[in-house]
Parts: sequence; structure tokens; C-alpha cells
Amino acid sequence: MKNKIICFGEIMLRLSPPNHQKIEQADTFNATYGGAEANVAVSLAHFDQSVSFVSRIPENQLGDTAIAQLRKHGVDTKNIVRGGERLGSYFLEIGVMHRTSQVVYDRAYSGFATLKENTIDWIKVFEGAEWLHWSGISPAVSATAAKVCFEALSAAKKKGLTVSCDLNYRSKLWKYGKGPKEIMPQLIELTDIVLGGKEDARIMLGVEFEENDGYDSAPRRIKEHFPHLKMVATSLRKSYSASHNNISGVLFDGIEEFRSTAYDMPFMIDRVGGGDAYMAGLIYGFINYTDDPQKIIDFAAAASCLKHTIHGDASLTKVSEVEGIMGGKDAGLVSR
Amino acid sequence: MKNKIICFGEIMLRLSPPNHQKIEQADTFNATYGGAEANVAVSLAHFDQSVSFVSRIPENQLGDTAIAQLRKHGVDTKNIVRGGERLGSYFLEIGVMHRTSQVVYDRAYSGFATLKENTIDWIKVFEGAEWLHWSGISPAVSATAAKVCFEALSAAKKKGLTVSCDLNYRSKLWKYGKGPKEIMPQLIELTDIVLGGKEDARIMLGVEFEENDGYDSAPRRIKEHFPHLKMVATSLRKSYSASHNNISGVLFDGIEEFRSTAYDMPFMIDRVGGGDAYMAGLIYGFINYTDDPQKIIDFAAAASCLKHTIHGDASLTKVSEVEGIMGGKDAGLVSR
Amino acid sequence: MKNKIICFGEIMLRLSPPNHQKIEQADTFNATYGGAEANVAVSLAHFDQSVSFVSRIPENQLGDTAIAQLRKHGVDTKNIVRGGERLGSYFLEIGVMHRTSQVVYDRAYSGFATLKENTIDWIKVFEGAEWLHWSGISPAVSATAAKVCFEALSAAKKKGLTVSCDLNYRSKLWKYGKGPKEIMPQLIELTDIVLGGKEDARIMLGVEFEENDGYDSAPRRIKEHFPHLKMVATSLRKSYSASHNNISGVLFDGIEEFRSTAYDMPFMIDRVGGGDAYMAGLIYGFINYTDDPQKIIDFAAAASCLKHTIHGDASLTKVSEVEGIMGGKDAGLVSR
Amino acid sequence: MKNKIICFGEIMLRLSPPNHQKIEQADTFNATYGGAEANVAVSLAHFDQSVSFVSRIPENQLGDTAIAQLRKHGVDTKNIVRGGERLGSYFLEIGVMHRTSQVVYDRAYSGFATLKENTIDWIKVFEGAEWLHWSGISPAVSATAAKVCFEALSAAKKKGLTVSCDLNYRSKLWKYGKGPKEIMPQLIELTDIVLGGKEDARIMLGVEFEENDGYDSAPRRIKEHFPHLKMVATSLRKSYSASHNNISGVLFDGIEEFRSTAYDMPFMIDRVGGGDAYMAGLIYGFINYTDDPQKIIDFAAAASCLKHTIHGDASLTKVSEVEGIMGGKDAGLVSR
Amino acid sequence: MKNKIICFGEIMLRLSPPNHQKIEQADTFNATYGGAEANVAVSLAHFDQSVSFVSRIPENQLGDTAIAQLRKHGVDTKNIVRGGERLGSYFLEIGVMHRTSQVVYDRAYSGFATLKENTIDWIKVFEGAEWLHWSGISPAVSATAAKVCFEALSAAKKKGLTVSCDLNYRSKLWKYGKGPKEIMPQLIELTDIVLGGKEDARIMLGVEFEENDGYDSAPRRIKEHFPHLKMVATSLRKSYSASHNNISGVLFDGIEEFRSTAYDMPFMIDRVGGGDAYMAGLIYGFINYTDDPQKIIDFAAAASCLKHTIHGDASLTKVSEVEGIMGGKDAGLVSR
Amino acid sequence: MKNKIICFGEIMLRLSPPNHQKIEQADTFNATYGGAEANVAVSLAHFDQSVSFVSRIPENQLGDTAIAQLRKHGVDTKNIVRGGERLGSYFLEIGVMHRTSQVVYDRAYSGFATLKENTIDWIKVFEGAEWLHWSGISPAVSATAAKVCFEALSAAKKKGLTVSCDLNYRSKLWKYGKGPKEIMPQLIELTDIVLGGKEDARIMLGVEFEENDGYDSAPRRIKEHFPHLKMVATSLRKSYSASHNNISGVLFDGIEEFRSTAYDMPFMIDRVGGGDAYMAGLIYGFINYTDDPQKIIDFAAAASCLKHTIHGDASLTKVSEVEGIMGGKDAGLVSR
Repeated sequence: MKNKIICFGEIMLRLSPPNHQKIEQADTFNATYGGAEANVAVSLAHFDQSVSFVSRIPENQLGDTAIAQLRKHGVDTKNIVRGGERLGSYFLEIGVMHRTSQVVYDRAYSGFATLKENTIDWIKVFEGAEWLHWSGISPAVSATAAKVCFEALSAAKKKGLTVSCDLNYRSKLWKYGKGPKEIMPQLIELTDIVLGGKEDARIMLGVEFEENDGYDSAPRRIKEHFPHLKMVATSLRKSYSASHNNISGVLFDGIEEFRSTAYDMPFMIDRVGGGDAYMAGLIYGFINYTDDPQKIIDFAAAASCLKHTIHGDASLTKVSEVEGIMGGKDAGLVSR
Repeated sequence: MKNKIICFGEIMLRLSPPNHQKIEQADTFNATYGGAEANVAVSLAHFDQSVSFVSRIPENQLGDTAIAQLRKHGVDTKNIVRGGERLGSYFLEIGVMHRTSQVVYDRAYSGFATLKENTIDWIKVFEGAEWLHWSGISPAVSATAAKVCFEALSAAKKKGLTVSCDLNYRSKLWKYGKGPKEIMPQLIELTDIVLGGKEDARIMLGVEFEENDGYDSAPRRIKEHFPHLKMVATSLRKSYSASHNNISGVLFDGIEEFRSTAYDMPFMIDRVGGGDAYMAGLIYGFINYTDDPQKIIDFAAAASCLKHTIHGDASLTKVSEVEGIMGGKDAGLVSR
Repeated sequence: MKNKIICFGEIMLRLSPPNHQKIEQADTFNATYGGAEANVAVSLAHFDQSVSFVSRIPENQLGDTAIAQLRKHGVDTKNIVRGGERLGSYFLEIGVMHRTSQVVYDRAYSGFATLKENTIDWIKVFEGAEWLHWSGISPAVSATAAKVCFEALSAAKKKGLTVSCDLNYRSKLWKYGKGPKEIMPQLIELTDIVLGGKEDARIMLGVEFEENDGYDSAPRRIKEHFPHLKMVATSLRKSYSASHNNISGVLFDGIEEFRSTAYDMPFMIDRVGGGDAYMAGLIYGFINYTDDPQKIIDFAAAASCLKHTIHGDASLTKVSEVEGIMGGKDAGLVSR
Repeated sequence: MKNKIICFGEIMLRLSPPNHQKIEQADTFNATYGGAEANVAVSLAHFDQSVSFVSRIPENQLGDTAIAQLRKHGVDTKNIVRGGERLGSYFLEIGVMHRTSQVVYDRAYSGFATLKENTIDWIKVFEGAEWLHWSGISPAVSATAAKVCFEALSAAKKKGLTVSCDLNYRSKLWKYGKGPKEIMPQLIELTDIVLGGKEDARIMLGVEFEENDGYDSAPRRIKEHFPHLKMVATSLRKSYSASHNNISGVLFDGIEEFRSTAYDMPFMIDRVGGGDAYMAGLIYGFINYTDDPQKIIDFAAAASCLKHTIHGDASLTKVSEVEGIMGGKDAGLVSR
Repeated sequence: MKNKIICFGEIMLRLSPPNHQKIEQADTFNATYGGAEANVAVSLAHFDQSVSFVSRIPENQLGDTAIAQLRKHGVDTKNIVRGGERLGSYFLEIGVMHRTSQVVYDRAYSGFATLKENTIDWIKVFEGAEWLHWSGISPAVSATAAKVCFEALSAAKKKGLTVSCDLNYRSKLWKYGKGPKEIMPQLIELTDIVLGGKEDARIMLGVEFEENDGYDSAPRRIKEHFPHLKMVATSLRKSYSASHNNISGVLFDGIEEFRSTAYDMPFMIDRVGGGDAYMAGLIYGFINYTDDPQKIIDFAAAASCLKHTIHGDASLTKVSEVEGIMGGKDAGLVSR
Repeated sequence: MKNKIICFGEIMLRLSPPNHQKIEQADTFNATYGGAEANVAVSLAHFDQSVSFVSRIPENQLGDTAIAQLRKHGVDTKNIVRGGERLGSYFLEIGVMHRTSQVVYDRAYSGFATLKENTIDWIKVFEGAEWLHWSGISPAVSATAAKVCFEALSAAKKKGLTVSCDLNYRSKLWKYGKGPKEIMPQLIELTDIVLGGKEDARIMLGVEFEENDGYDSAPRRIKEHFPHLKMVATSLRKSYSASHNNISGVLFDGIEEFRSTAYDMPFMIDRVGGGDAYMAGLIYGFINYTDDPQKIIDFAAAASCLKHTIHGDASLTKVSEVEGIMGGKDAGLVSR
């Protein structure tokens, strides 16, 4: 039997000018549906994990379509609550070379942002579940969404689920009167596994770094700060240009640090969701390679690498594809 | 010298699945920019009238693009105020035959909806202007927008401009606590020329109709109710299906009723904006065929008919094209 | 929760040149996935019925995608068996006016055509089910597929399910050595509700017609021939051109004949699947309007009419949309 | 053995905004290659006739592509002379309903317009040929092109070929100093079969009509004026709108008038080339139904009707498809 | 006068999701027509060689279109035999960076696979011909196709033609009961020029390699094994990723080894057909640079390099373009 | 408010096959409107400069659209004179890697090429202006266009405008009887700032270079030859392939040489117009960083670099984007 994973968060309509056009040039927008936690869910479904997405989505055709897309990708949608005025959306202008990608968020007042406590029946959602994944975007959206995060995590802990979190700091959010440091630490106390970088840790969790601490010090420092955590990971991204990045991962289990191969990605198709694919790879790894932290971080980095070859927020690769590049195999051959 | 016309209202991003797809099927959306009063402005610019659009539009790439599109179509944009959180948008699923077109509005919290009094310098806007056009959508959006309408109309009357209004009742708006009857009549008192149908007049202006009054009775009844109006017009649309309509117009000058030819439109390309093209036709007619009400209504109906052959909200036809079909000429020949 | 309705048959990749192009002109093909029984399943899912599709689909990316599409549309896919060499496909050139639509079938040797007895666990499939739908295409594909039909129907009868069949005569099939008359009658003996026209009945069931029997005589004659049937329906299609048809329905309950409104469809978007939408409408009607045969046939005809406005094989309309045109309401208005 | 037909004229690049857009809206143009005589050649090749196109086409990638397209459609291209500065082109805005289609010609200074006498080796071109087709567009383009027409026709007559001409009056051409009446009559003297309407005959040939002469009188009057002609035909087009026409044909053999069925075409895909398909139908008919003028005109009208369902200038229908609708058969059925 | 080259093999419909999409994401497929030997033919036609393609292609619209495409590209098609049930097809998912390209073959039961001896009149086909090209794919498809290869080669040898073969090992074929070693050696005995790599030679021809033999040893070892061969070549491809390869060539004339420049290709548009373009380059070289093996291999490698810049299976470059990059000239300048 | 900068030259329709297709493969062309001086104008408008474009454009829909596009991009168009037979056009096949981009010009006989003296009212055009920009393409087009250049420059000098020129040598132009050296030097005498490379200077201005003079010597040598010039710049482009270039700039103020960073551009989207963006950057710099030649050349090189990431001839980047990469900042981050 497979493990039942619950992902909780927002899903948005993403509108993106085709073919690296600027918004000013666009007569059409490519439409996909995504969000940090939904992307993790879709990735996990493609890894053949049993996964259910929990959110609040308005009762209109855009909401219906967001749900249909999740279903298409193999994600269970029966725990989604319908309601709210609008589906959050964002516009993504995909840069190239020296031209930076641009995001115009339009997610305020969404069904998720107006979600309130006592709306979701967490007891029912967690029936048969073993894992809850959330991210630092949800409590950043609104005061009520932050409260629902607390509600969800408390119920999850009571039920004995493993809880994972991708810190995902977004400077354009956290506008409702509270800062991340007022909210996140208590949520992390209810969490077992954390993914986050140095800036996330500093700004959201109040973790302090020493002068010489590199980007790869985040897992160790976060663990020092929150000793209850089982595992802490970070992804290391070098950005040479909007098209060319390099990605690798570090995982700290409290004793040892494990590092993945670094993947050079000279002409990325779509880098949005690269972190979510990494997170999904970690979750898959924790569940399926329990005693092999090196394999966990290798799988996560390879999964993230492949995401950068795929249009849309969510990775659509299978375990065999990820494993195929973990050892540097299949380097660009045509399979025929 | 040309007449300077001011159009005041909201412009939105319209997202429409191509080729009569349902939203559920759409991987891409066609993007155009429109709104009732902006559509009138674009039409008038194509009729070679000097026209300026006044609105409040956010400072982001979508706002920039909305303005660039107006400029492309020949509309002056220097009176537009920048500000607000988001550009209003709406999704349009274009039906066919028995399948109805569907609109999903997403215009709340827009730059226009949050426009406040004393933001627009109406004295400067009206320099050299002779005409102000507004519609019943603006006061329906928010209490502050309604107040700005009053501000604009008062300034226009003081300046001696001719003021025209398309009543445009929208049942999904008027949600801010006041009903149209509390707002519209006092705005109509500051207006000279009104376009509206029987339902608009009843719901928005409190005009009463007798049992046998047909759709074509609206101009006469509105004029009875608001004797100060110079002209009142209505468009008569028969909807056989989502693809097949028939359009004609009636104009009442207080003495006589003038009726246009009826245009049969068996496979419309895009019926949104058909009323705005009609309104633009009326304004063009009032200015250019001053003493010929029959020609005014003929031009308006022909302009509206041609709009139904054009993708997007706004009509892009020239005076020569409209005049070309006023007499039933040019019926489908290829000009070569 | 279990699935109430089981649809059994083949799903194919459909490749169709865009925009009424001929195959010779096509640089791209639009790809959708459909088949008579899958289309019924998708329609029923859009009518909010719990429905599961049973078939045999190869283990490759095309098979994966066919299944993902069913899932997207809300059809349960857990009863699908994976196997076989290829996914059947067909090319559809969509005609217009006097130019006939052309189908090039490429469905031989498919996973479904090579399906054998004892592959599907019907006991498990029918757990909690109340209805089985099949069509005359399945036994036409291959000798083994015909045997699986018998296997399925026998199991369904034993379980007490209601069984419906759309006769769907296809002259290009039935090439494996047996004619329809050798197979179909014994399958119809295990069926409760039949949809079929005069030619289907004559060629597949051996029903005889009198000289003056019109197309609408099929239900009555089929019922005479197979008195055990509960209901027999036929759809009446007048084909004026490839773009312009007229559709209506007749239903015979053994006592009385019920006739729907006739829908004129002057510029159909896609007429493939019009019969499947009709069949889905009948099933929905039988389940939801049990005692109202007039409403059943009205719903079926309206559902079929709306299908002709939608690209792809399958209808994506909701009950409210179908009911919206049953009484001739909503004729082409924009809902805003 | 098939008959060898030579078509002489210009081929151009046609650029057309997709989906009934106006040129102002077009970010892309659909590119096809056509011209009156090339369209006749392509049609005849689809009727399985052996046909060769003669022209002068520049040595660049556009010229190469025009030739490749002819080859794709089965037209022999070995008689084409390469040379000149540019390939003629034209922009076609495809209207709909009341909006007229617009043509912007850009064909001046083309390789064909600058073609001179003694460039084409007519002796070699006519080897094994039986038929020459030309149209009134070629002598309208330039003085030298007119001279080459005379050169071609003289050689054809000497060789004993049947010569056909489509008068094709174009008011935007004939700009080089001579009017059609100074050129065309002497070319028609070298021609056997003429297609032309009342206006063509009056303006180009000086044929006089009586007050009550209808459009269908053209064949009779042209034959009176040029008694040497074997057959004269005209097509009768009623233009209800840019989308809706009705087409039929009349053929006069000097004794009797033969009339085809009239085809109603309520939503034409592309009407450019409708006359060329008609001409190709006539030529096919003259060669294959020699003694059956009724069948000739029926075939020509049906061929023209089908052209209106096909994108691009040239008809791509087969003899079986044309014959399929000659008797009103196959009215919109899906062949499966 | 040009040399007449005959290419014998299968042509398939290739369906490819646009823009690096995965099949799962594809709403449309780009359609092109190709196959190893057809690609060689198209390349040679673009090199201005007289070339004819021989195959068996079904009598339907897809078959017609495959032939029309060959004609468009300048390949003679009169030797193609029509017949069989279906046109073979394959789906190509074009990878990028670390994501491998995926091929789903659907070529079983095609017109070519069911081709039998005594179907093609080789005497007639070889009239005026000087060269026959075939590949190791044809005998891999079916037992009968293998026999027709033998039939063709025997006739070619009798006629004195030069025969070339691209070994083209495909592990997914050779499923009909015989292995390549049972078939290929006797066909190579009838062949003069062979293109193949180390694996092809080992698996298909039983050539043995020593431990230290590199990829570039193939030509020498094959020549040792089959001393009658005039020339043996191999292409050397380094695959850094799905987007980034490096290509060069080696040619062995029995005495000396000639090596081309290596071309670095950091973002290939389409690598399918890169080997066929190389083969076409070799044939062009053998015919046109008879005494200059260095120029032959340089031309072949440059031709292959350019193929990787072109969408579809077949190279569309001219001799001048290939020669333009042979000396490293024209490095990315715009010619204007 | 008046326009500060006047750009004078031709604007053309550019037709480009999408997605790196060859012209032979193109069923559609992407349509944009551009030309060296128009591109400078659009760039400057995006830098928030007040700019007006002067040209002669025909009175047809293509001319209207060219003007509408300029307006969209914020360029003033009131000084454009309408007239002439055709809009110049060019076809651009965008190469990739080793495949060179191809341009097919079709600009002869255009409205601009037939522009004559005394057509443009320079007094009126220059009202309130401070800068005139022209390029060496205009006098290359026709004798009359060269005379209008002289007319314009004389008026500009009289009015005291700063005059800039991009030499832009085009070998395919200068066909009307005079060579560049007969025309350009006297025009440069009326110019203050020149952009040009070594070849431009040698061929167009007769500047002599010494054997060891590199590409970067052009500014110094041009200044020696024309001591009156205030500033001379050149751009240094290394072309590794059609996709991969490296760009930097050199500026000479008569005393000192200033060099920009070199930008590596490994996969350019569109390199046409890269020089025009550089020119626009220079003009922006001269006006806004008057006393900082280093900043001028840095801004120009960065502006040029960003152009290579944008489809179409014209750069659409803002000052903030250009400044963002001047210091190597924003390397490929997503702004969210």
C-alpha cells in the first residue's frame, strides 16, 4: 500500500506569455494552474504516491478547471472546500539570458486568502494519512490563513503525522500586519522536516548566522535553532542568467551533512516550481529511501533539475526518469 | 478641427479561450483590453474623432499594456491616472448556437474601483473638450467610483460639455450597499443623451412602463421621465442563439421616433461590445449628422452590426465601412 | 463511495486538423481522446454522476494520457487494465457546408481489440454499481472483444445491473469473420435499454421494417422484436450539410411514444459524439427522471444539441446548461 | 493516358490574418501561394490531370517555396523560368457577414510583371500538350506580359492546342497605358473557350448588352460577338454577405444553354479562388465529359462550391468529392 | 546531367508535441513525414540531386499527404506502390537538457511492413539509375520486407548500381523471429558503401572489436570483415545532454582514415535525422567529390550539423549552405 | 508639449517564420514592423523620452498598422506623411547555431524610397525638437531619399539640433547610381555624433585604416577624418554562431576612449535591431548622462544586450531594466 500524503495550500491560475514574449507583446497567455503546495502534490502523484490536495477554491469555471487539472495529474481533490470570490492568479513573464523573469501577483482576496478556521474538517482529511506538507506561503497570505495553518498542524501532530514545510519566503506577501517571525516559529515547532535557505531562516525563523556561514550552512543552523527537527535541507541555486542556473542540494540529519551532485542547466525551459519539485523529491525520498539520506538528497536534486525542462509550475516526471539521471545516465540519448 | 471627446470608465483585461473552447478546455487565453467606455473611445478614434480616455490604472505591466493598446487604437491616454493594486479582468467563454456565452468577472478591488474623489483634475481633462461620455457601469462598481461620476458630470456641466450615458445595467455589480435608483437619476439629471433599454430604465431610473409597452418604448418613456434629455436611444436585439442575433435601433428626439434598418447577424464573431459600438455610432452621428436623426440612428445600427464581425471588445471599423453598409451596399464582395 | 455507472469500451486518440483544414494541409493535429463509451462516461461525469470507465489501454505515454484525460473529466479509471501494443487512433477531417467530414480509422491491433476473456475482474468492477453501458462498437472490433462483451453482460445481469446499449453500427468494422446478426441479438437479450436507428436495427438485429416505416419507427419495431426491453430510443438527425443538422429524439416505453423538441444546429462546431451525448442524456434521465419519459427524451435531445457546440468527442456540459435549453431558455444571452 | 494541360500566369504569396482578424489586429499572417492560373493548375492536378504551370518566378526563398507548393499539389514545374526582383504578393483580410473582405495588392515589379518576349521556349513547353489555359489578369499586369500572352497564344494555335480563358477583370490592374479593349479582343480571337461575366465582357471585350439582359446572358452575347468560340460559360454568384453566397453556372455551346444546380453557401471558409475552381471544373469537364455539356456545367459548379469550404486560393478536392455532391449526395454525413 | 539515386524504405507520420512539451501536456501535435531513407532522399533533393523514393504507402489521405510532402521537397514519387492498411507512425517527445527525448513507435502492420516480393518492378525503378540507398531498418521491420531488400539489392547489383547502406540498428525492431546477424551480412555482401557505428557492426554484422577499439574504429573493423566494401564511414556523436551534442565523422577507404572537423551543437533544435543527413552528405560527396575523401567526410559532417538546426526529420539545406560552414565561415552573420 | 527627439527613416513590415523555421516550412509568418530609425524611436520611447518618427508611409491598411504599432510603443506619429504605392517589407529567417539567419529584402518602390524633397515640412517637424537621428540606410535607398536626408540635416543644423547618425552600411542597397562615398561625407559634415564600425567607415566615408587597426579603432579614425564630430562610437560584436554572440561598445570623445563591459549572449532570441538598441542607448546616454561618457557607453551596451532577448526589431526595455544589468545585477532571479 502507498502512503497517503496531504498537501495544504493555495492553487492559482498562472498566465504566461508564450515564447519568452513580454506582457506588452502578448496577444495570448498560456494558462496553467499551480502553487507551491499543489506543485508538490502533482510531483508526488507522478512519483506514484497517493496524495490529496486541501484548499479553498471558488465555485466558478476557473475553480472547476484548477480542480480538473489536479485530477488529471492524479491528485485526489475530494478534500477541497469550495468558496470565496475569486481564484488567485499571477502573470509570469519568462525572461531569457540577461532579461529577468517578472511576476505580477494578483492573488489578494482569493478563496484561499479568505479561508477561515473551522472550515476544513481535518479529522476527515487526515483519515488514513501519514504525512502533511505545508509551506511558508500560506501563513503569509492572510491572518486567517495563518490560523488555519496552526489548526491543521495541531490536528496533524495529534494524529501523529509527519509534517514537512518549505519555508518559501515571499517579500511581496506578509502584508496583513504580522511579520513572519511572529508566526512561523510556533508553526515550525509542529513540523518535523524543513526545507529552507539562509535568507528564509534569518527572516522567517530568526535563525542567526555567523559571518562566514555560506548558503549551505542553513540546514545546520536551523537544526541548532529547532533541535526537534528530524531533517533540514536546503537547495543551492547559482543563477548565471535567467536561462542558466546550477542546482544542488544539502541535507542535514543532525549528525551528518549529505550533498548531491550539482546539475548545470544552461537553457532552462521554466524555473518556477524548481523548489517545489525539490521538496517533492525530499518527501518521496524520506518515505522510500528511509535509511539512505544520500539517496534522498540525490533524488531531490535530480527531480528539481528535471523540473527545469518542463513548462508550467509542476514537475511531470516519473521516478524512473529521476533515477535515470541520478547517476548521470541517459545523457541526451533518444530512446528508440 | 475635430471635436474632443472624453470617455470616462474602467478598462479591463479580457481573457477568452480561443475558438469557442470552454474555459475547462483552454490551454491558452486570447488577451484583449476593453470596457464599455474604453470601447466607445476606440470606436470613436477609428471614426477619426479626437478622443481621450480617463481612468485609474495600476502601475504594473498589465496597466502599461492596457494603456499601450488604447494608444495603438488612436486614443489619447495622457489623462489616465496611475494607481491601485490590480487591473480588473474578466473571463469570457464565447458560446455558439444553443450554448450561451459565459462571463466570469474578476474586477473587484481594481484601480478603478478604488478611485476616489479629488484624484482626477477635471478642469485639465476638459480643456478643449466638447463631449463627456460615461456609462452606468462606473457608479455600479463602488461607492467612491459613483462619487467620482458625480464629480465628473458636475464639472462637465459647468464647462458646458454635452454629456452622454449608456445605462448598461449589470446585475452582478451594484453590490456596495446602494441600489441604482439611489444613484443614477441624479446623474442622469446632469446628462443630455441617454442610451438604454426597457429593463435598464425600469431598474436603474425607476421609469414605469405600461403593459403593452414594447422594447422600443424605452426612449419615449425615458424622455417622459427626464424631459431635460435631448435625445434618447435604444438598441433592439433579438437573440435567436449565441451565434445569431438581429440588431436595430430607435432614436427619440422628443417629437419623433427614428428607426434604423434591422441587421441580421447569423454567425457573429464576438458580440461583446456591440452596444458600445452602437453608442459610439450615436456620438459620431450627433456630432457629424447634427440635423439628421435618421442618419444618426442608421449609422449607429450599422456600426453596431459591424462590431459583431470583429474579435475583441472594441470595434475597429472606419466611417467609410459603416457608411458602406448603411445603404445595404458592399454585400460581401471582395474588393480587388 | 462506489461508482454507480460502468461504461465499457475503447478509448482512442483522435487527431484532427485545426480549423476545418484538410489532412493534406495540416501541419498540426489537435489531439483529443475519445470513443463512444468513454464519451458517455465523460458526459455523465459532467452531469455529476459517479461513473467508471473499463477498458484495456497500453502501457505507454499515449495510454497514460488517455487515462489522465478521463481523470481530468471526472471519470474513475481504477478499473482500466493496462496492456496491448498500441492505442487505437483515428484521424478526423472536419468538413464544412457541402464538404463531408472524413474519418481515417487506425484502430486495428489496439489494446482493446486484443482484449481477451478472463482479463477483467467483473465482480470487482461491479461492486456497488447499478448500471452498465456498452455499445455495438465493442463486439465489432474483434472476436475476443465480442466474447468479453458477453462475459461483461452476463456478469452484469447476474449482479442485477441495468444494462444499456447504443447499437452504433459501423460498416468499416465487423471484419473478423462474424456479422453483427450473429453476435448482437444474444447481447441485446442481456440488455434493458437500447438506443438505435432503423439501419442499426435492420443490419445488426435483423429487425424488419414495413415499407412506410419512417426513421422514427425504430423504437417501436425494436421493442416488438425484443419484448423484454424496458425502453428503446432513437435520435432523428437531419443532415442538411456538414455544418447544418437538426436533431431530435423519440423514446418508446412499450406503450407510448415520447418526442423531444427538434433543435436546429446551423453551424455545428463538432458533430462527432452527438449520439454519445444523447445516450448519456438518456442514462441520466432514466436515473434521475424515472417516471417522466417526456423529460428523459427532452434532456437527451438537449444534451445532444449542446454537444454539437463543443470541440472534441465528449460533451462537457452540466445539467444546468442542458436544462437551460430544454425549455428554449437562455437563447444566446451573455450572462453577466 | 492523361491529357497534358498548360496553365500560364502569375503565382503570388498570399498573406492573410488568421481567424477573420483585421490586418490591424494581426500578429501573424497565414501564408499560402496562389494566383488565378496557378489555382486552376492545382485544381486540375487534384482531378488527376497532368498539368504544368508556366511562369517567371524570382530566384529567392519565396520563389523556391512557391514552386515547392505547386509541386506538393502535383503540378509540374519544370517549365517555370526563374528571374525577376520579387515575388508578387497580396494581403487578404477575410471578412464575415456584413464586413467585406479586403485585398491589398502588392504585385507590381514582380518577376512575372517584368517577363519579356522570347524568354519562354513555347515550342518546348507545348511538347505533348493539348490544352493551354490563360486569364485576363496576365495581360493586365504589364505591357510586356500582354505581349507574352500573344506570343503564347500564337504558338498554341500553331500547335493546335485548345485554348481557354477566364476573363477575370481586375479594375486595380490595367495601369500601364492600354485598356483591356485594346488588348483582349485579339487574344480572344486565339482562344476557344471563354469564361466571363457580363461586366467582364462589356469592359474587356466591348460586348454590348440590352437593357433586359440578365447576368446569365453573358455566354450568349459573348458567343454572338466572337462566333469562333466553341463554348462560353459564366458563373452566377449571389452575394448575400461576406460569408453567405450562392453559386451556379451557365454554359452556352452556340445552340443551347445549360444551367447547373445553384449551391447555397451560408458560411464560406474562403471565397477567393471560387472562380478558378469553376474554371478548372470546366476544363476537366470539357476533356472528360466531351459530349455532355450538362455534366460539364454541373461538375464546374460543384467544384466551385467545394472550393468555398477550403482555406487558401486553390481547391484541393478530388473528382469523387465533386461528383459526390453533383447529385446532392453525401449531405454532411461523416464517413466512418 | 544529374545522377539518379533510388532510396528504398519506409516513410512514417511523425507526431511531436510542440515546444518541448511532454505528450501528457500536448493538445496539438506537429505533423511531419519522415523515415531514415526518405530523409536521405529529401536531403539529396535539396542538394539538387535527382532522387526517387521507393516504398509501399496505403491508399488514404495520410498516404497521399506523405507522398505530397516528398514531392514538395523535390523527391520523385512515381515508383511508390500504393497499398496496405495503415501508414506507420511514431510519436516523438523532444527532450531538453537532462530530459531525454522519447519515441513511441506505432509502425507495426504498416503498408511497408506488409510489403511482399514481386510487388515492386525493380527493372523499371532502376531505369537510368546509378545508385541505390537502403538502411538496416527495412529488414528489421518484417520477414517479407527483409526479402524485398534482398530482391532489390540483387537487382541493383545485376544492373551495376552503387549500393549504400546505413546500418541503423533499432533494438525495438527485429521482432519477427530472425536476428540481424541472420539477415544483414548477406545484404551487406551486395552493398558497396556502409555507414555504421561500433554497436551496429557488432550486433548486426558480427564484427568483433578489440578491447581498446574506440568508437572511431568501426570503419576499419567493418572493412576488415567485409573487404569488398569500397568505403566505410561512421559518425561520432558525443551526447552531453538532450540539447547539447557534438558531431564529427570518420571515413575509411581501405587505406587511409579521414576525419572531419567536430561541430559543437549546444542547443539543437531537432536531432532526429542527424544521421540521415550525414548519410545524404556521404552520398553527395561520393558522387560529387569522387577523388577527395577528406571533402566527402567534411561535407557529410557539416550537412549533419546543419540538420540539427531544422525542425522535422529531414534536412532542408542546400549545398551552398553546407559548404558555407565546411570552412567555419558564416559564423552567425545575418546576410543583408 | 513638443517632441525632443526626431527619428527619420523607413519603417517596414517584417515577416518571420515562427520558431526558427525555414521560409520553405512556414505556413505562417510572424508580423512585426521595424526599421533602423523606427527601432531607435521605439527604444527611446521605452526609455521615457519624447520622440517623434518622420517617414512616408502608404495609405493602406499596412501603412495604418505600421503607424498604430509606433503609437502603441509610445512614439509620436503626427509628422508622418502618407503616400506611395507600397510599404517596404522584408522576410527574416532566424537561424540557430551554425545556420545563418537569412534576409530577403522587398523594400524597393516603397513610400519611403519614392519620397521627394519639399514633401516634409521640416520647420514644423523641428518645432521644440532638440535632436535629429538618421542612419546611412536612408540615403542608400534612392537618389531622392538621399536628397531628403540633406534637406533634413540642413534644416536641423539651421535650427541648432544635435544630429546623430548610425552609418549602417547595407551592401544590398546603394543601387541607384551613386556610391556611399559620393553622398555620406557631406551628410556627416552636418552630423555631430556617429556610430559606425571599421567597414562602414572605410566603405561609406573613405576613412583609411592602418594594417594593425582593430575593430575598436573605428571611433578614433572616424574622429580624425571628421574632426568636427563630438563623439564617435562603435559596437564590437563577436559572432560565434547564429545563436551565440558577444557584444560590447567603445566610445571616443576626441580625447579618451571608453569601453563597456562585454556581454556574452549564448542563445539570442532575436539579434536584428541589436545595433539600433545600442544607438538608442547612446542617445539616451548623451542626453541623460551628459558628463559621464563611461556611463553612456555602459548604458548603450547593456541596452543592446537586452534587445537580443526580445522578439521583433525593437527593444522594449525600460531604463530600470537596462540599469539593472549595467552593474551585473539581477542575474536571472525571478522577481516575486
